[in-house]
Amino acid sequence: MSKLLYPSAFEELIASFRTLPGIGSKSAERMAYQILEMDEEAVSRFASSLLKVKNEIKHCQICGLMSDTDTCNICNSNIRDESLVCVVQSSKDVFALEKSEGYNGLYHVLNGVISTVNGKSVDELNLDSLVERVNEGKIKEVILATNPTVEGEVTALYISELLKDKEVIVTRLAYGLPVGAHLDYADELTLNRALQGRRKISNK
Amino acid sequence: MSKLLYPSAFEELIASFRTLPGIGSKSAERMAYQILEMDEEAVSRFASSLLKVKNEIKHCQICGLMSDTDTCNICNSNIRDESLVCVVQSSKDVFALEKSEGYNGLYHVLNGVISTVNGKSVDELNLDSLVERVNEGKIKEVILATNPTVEGEVTALYISELLKDKEVIVTRLAYGLPVGAHLDYADELTLNRALQGRRKISNK
Repeated sequence: MSKLLYPSAFEELIASFRTLPGIGSKSAERMAYQILEMDEEAVSRFASSLLKVKNEIKHCQICGLMSDTDTCNICNSNIRDESLVCVVQSSKDVFALEKSEGYNGLYHVLNGVISTVNGKSVDELNLDSLVERVNEGKIKEVILATNPTVEGEVTALYISELLKDKEVIVTRLAYGLPVGAHLDYADELTLNRALQGRRKISNK
Repeated sequence: MSKLLYPSAFEELIASFRTLPGIGSKSAERMAYQILEMDEEAVSRFASSLLKVKNEIKHCQICGLMSDTDTCNICNSNIRDESLVCVVQSSKDVFALEKSEGYNGLYHVLNGVISTVNGKSVDELNLDSLVERVNEGKIKEVILATNPTVEGEVTALYISELLKDKEVIVTRLAYGLPVGAHLDYADELTLNRALQGRRKISNK
């Protein structure tokens, strides 16, 4: 008995869903069935938003943040502190930092980290323009906010070397316990860093 | 400080992903970021497969199974037992039964069940054509294979009433323990049904 196959368009759609993060073949199948049951307007809106995201969203020419205009809202803003630049791995991180509402400087999005696994090399990162921005002389401090992972650390180290001779302070985000964490659940490395980075809270 | 917003196309894409089953706002965001990083060809393939699924896939004119041709491969096949029809809720179930390789008859896909919750009424189900098929006289047995849920049972009951006066045997899939299950984890209703449906295995 020959096996019953899905129509080819259906198979293609399942394959597309499978390329999404965290989606296995069962979930992809469920999603494709859902598409079958959605009304035509919703599906065509879905398809066109996919294309629009790919075609309309570029990187800000100054900082590399994703944006549908040539320069992003943050670079265009005149109420931000232009002497501060926070260097992050991806646009995602900018939105996370903006939600924290604790930062009013500018950003620089690398769109990647130096990685031997994914094969990203230094040239592929948005680094030349960072050096250019620093050379312009307005920036006084560069905050390295890459993730506290091996790749993030290597990238931070590389950038600090790159900016060594420039007239600019280079800082790194603090390590320590995440707020709301329990000491006994924290890993040793984090505890060590939290101890090293301890701060005085009384003046005696 | 005004909140930093995603570009509108990006927001739209997140909203589209959120309509998929089991996808919350965080996962939808991750998926949208993934789309940003996919190459253009993959994204346009994704978009076109969405549209193709919606435009090309119809229901088989005989049995209601999803198909990209007017009549499906199963209805077109000449090696299937035409005296048997298995009635299921959705195309998904046909593929599940075909995988089991234990059935060689035809199918009839209702594309829904009678439900007070989702508001599906009897008229919306693919039922008229089932009666027509039975009236043609080739079918000897109709196997009701709707899910063993309240809606599935109600629908099975309704169909059995509908076919009461026809020259056809109406059967229902067996209830019992799923293969590989543990007795102590089975619910009471399943255990009761398994007892009621017990079968003789010796001839003494």
